[in-house]
Amino acid sequence: MLGQAGCLQQRCNAVDFRRQSVSFAAASASQSRRCIRNRAVRMEVSASTVKPQIMVNSVAGKMGQAVAEATLRAGFELVPYTLANAEVAARSKTIPVAGKQVEVVGPDRRDAVMAEVKSRYPQLVMVDYTVPDVVNEMASFYIKHKTPFVMGTTGGDRAKLVKDVQDAKLYAVIAPNMGKQIVAFQAMFEHAAATFPGAFSGYKLRVVESHQSTKKDTSGTAKAVVASLNGLGLNFDVSQIELVREPKEQVERMKVPTDALNGHAFHTYQLVSGDGSVMFEFQHNVVGRTTYAEGTVDACLFLAQKVAGKAGQTLYNMVDVLKAGDMR
Amino acid sequence: MLGQAGCLQQRCNAVDFRRQSVSFAAASASQSRRCIRNRAVRMEVSASTVKPQIMVNSVAGKMGQAVAEATLRAGFELVPYTLANAEVAARSKTIPVAGKQVEVVGPDRRDAVMAEVKSRYPQLVMVDYTVPDVVNEMASFYIKHKTPFVMGTTGGDRAKLVKDVQDAKLYAVIAPNMGKQIVAFQAMFEHAAATFPGAFSGYKLRVVESHQSTKKDTSGTAKAVVASLNGLGLNFDVSQIELVREPKEQVERMKVPTDALNGHAFHTYQLVSGDGSVMFEFQHNVVGRTTYAEGTVDACLFLAQKVAGKAGQTLYNMVDVLKAGDMR
Repeated sequence: MLGQAGCLQQRCNAVDFRRQSVSFAAASASQSRRCIRNRAVRMEVSASTVKPQIMVNSVAGKMGQAVAEATLRAGFELVPYTLANAEVAARSKTIPVAGKQVEVVGPDRRDAVMAEVKSRYPQLVMVDYTVPDVVNEMASFYIKHKTPFVMGTTGGDRAKLVKDVQDAKLYAVIAPNMGKQIVAFQAMFEHAAATFPGAFSGYKLRVVESHQSTKKDTSGTAKAVVASLNGLGLNFDVSQIELVREPKEQVERMKVPTDALNGHAFHTYQLVSGDGSVMFEFQHNVVGRTTYAEGTVDACLFLAQKVAGKAGQTLYNMVDVLKAGDMR
Repeated sequence: MLGQAGCLQQRCNAVDFRRQSVSFAAASASQSRRCIRNRAVRMEVSASTVKPQIMVNSVAGKMGQAVAEATLRAGFELVPYTLANAEVAARSKTIPVAGKQVEVVGPDRRDAVMAEVKSRYPQLVMVDYTVPDVVNEMASFYIKHKTPFVMGTTGGDRAKLVKDVQDAKLYAVIAPNMGKQIVAFQAMFEHAAATFPGAFSGYKLRVVESHQSTKKDTSGTAKAVVASLNGLGLNFDVSQIELVREPKEQVERMKVPTDALNGHAFHTYQLVSGDGSVMFEFQHNVVGRTTYAEGTVDACLFLAQKVAGKAGQTLYNMVDVLKAGDMR
């Protein structure tokens, strides 16, 4: 992903906090690879006790591919099978992940393959980045096979999803946003709103977000943060969030690297006091899928510990993963 | 203060999130006055039940003057006396605050004047922005006269200060930083560090702060935030905080308004993931003293409620004020 999406760190150094209208040259592929290698080393050194054996479904999809790659970078075992729909299964027998082949399993074979996978991989954790239409069906499949799973897929009947998994007492992490640090950022603001109501009363807010031009709706993260900010005393409607979707504006105004135009999430929140003498600004800018993929692997590692420890609670979200602390 | 220090809001609009190297023209005095007037209106409309009668000591000082002005803007009664040292008392009989005269009381008369003030102003709250050398002496004076007080003065023997006030069961707010929103910002990060240890593990941090050229030491707020960020998994020594003290660099790099060079506090924290694909940035930029002065008045309002309600706890800080919510 990073080879495509550039390296924000390089851009940050170039900016040198100067807020100048610099042209953000994207990182070269070799620099990006070095970035990833450094992170992989850190992970391996501090890897935790019970290691998950991770099977990623929909490896043909971009998120599935990113999670499979992150699994290998983290030094965890990637189960060489991936569930797919009949169409994908008819098209491809295998899908490559970092040079290794993962066997595509269509609906006709999936029960048989799962029996074998379960016996060969006792620390199995499934990862689900399928599509909203099959969220509930996939959950039923994991419940049927009693396979712990981490689901980043959004949509579907969420109430049914939660109820089914809870009733089955199946170990799972379900979270619509697997970006650990972004979830932490959201949680910080939620906490502040609950603890210091009205602390920013009299302030004015401005929010702008930029995503790939195909995204039509407003960022869910921005909407959640705005809800917290309103709790802090602001009076801001989510319809006031500025959406940037034009590539030219993304590059010139938002400083999105050109090679990340098709995959980025940039958010800026600016709070200014009523008299204009104080300004707070918060930004979170993401290119590519690496942070979500790595958060997903963290969730798998977390879940493996819960399964091994026979924890009483079985259903978790990313805040639970965060609270468990840095595990690798 | 704002007449001198400009209006960040106007600058923000000018920037339009574009990060361009714009020249930040300071707000005109008339615009600044309008800013303040708007805030005063909001305060009066939602003013709370028990109104403090505020006596500000060291009104001759910049913070004392700012708090006295904020008291009047908030629609609260300003007690027309101010304690001062012998030198100030010999020099000035009165000090003007927004056109009104406040009588200067030197050490020789202060016991007599306090007896009169206490009888005339039953909701009296004293504000102390004196100097580190007399922190403990002033506290002893307030204890002797049983006058609730809000102290923003730093330095002195802090342990003795707290012990003396606690032993006397005197109502007081003691806080080295009265900027409510900045305290909230610090508390947010403290909470995150305690709740999500290591959430930003593998990230790199860069911190830069700009203050008036006479400030030699590193920002205490920046150091406190860095301590929290280290709890989130960063490994950053406070010696790595970049200090900007040169006016030219402050204007060009930090975008400090030229008329705020002698009174500003700008802070930027930038966190970049190990692979460079994620960047978080947090800024808090303050010009002038208004936000601290208004926070002080909020603390007085808070303390007046505690005194009236005969609260069991007597000693408070700004987090307590924040938790009480927006009171006006």
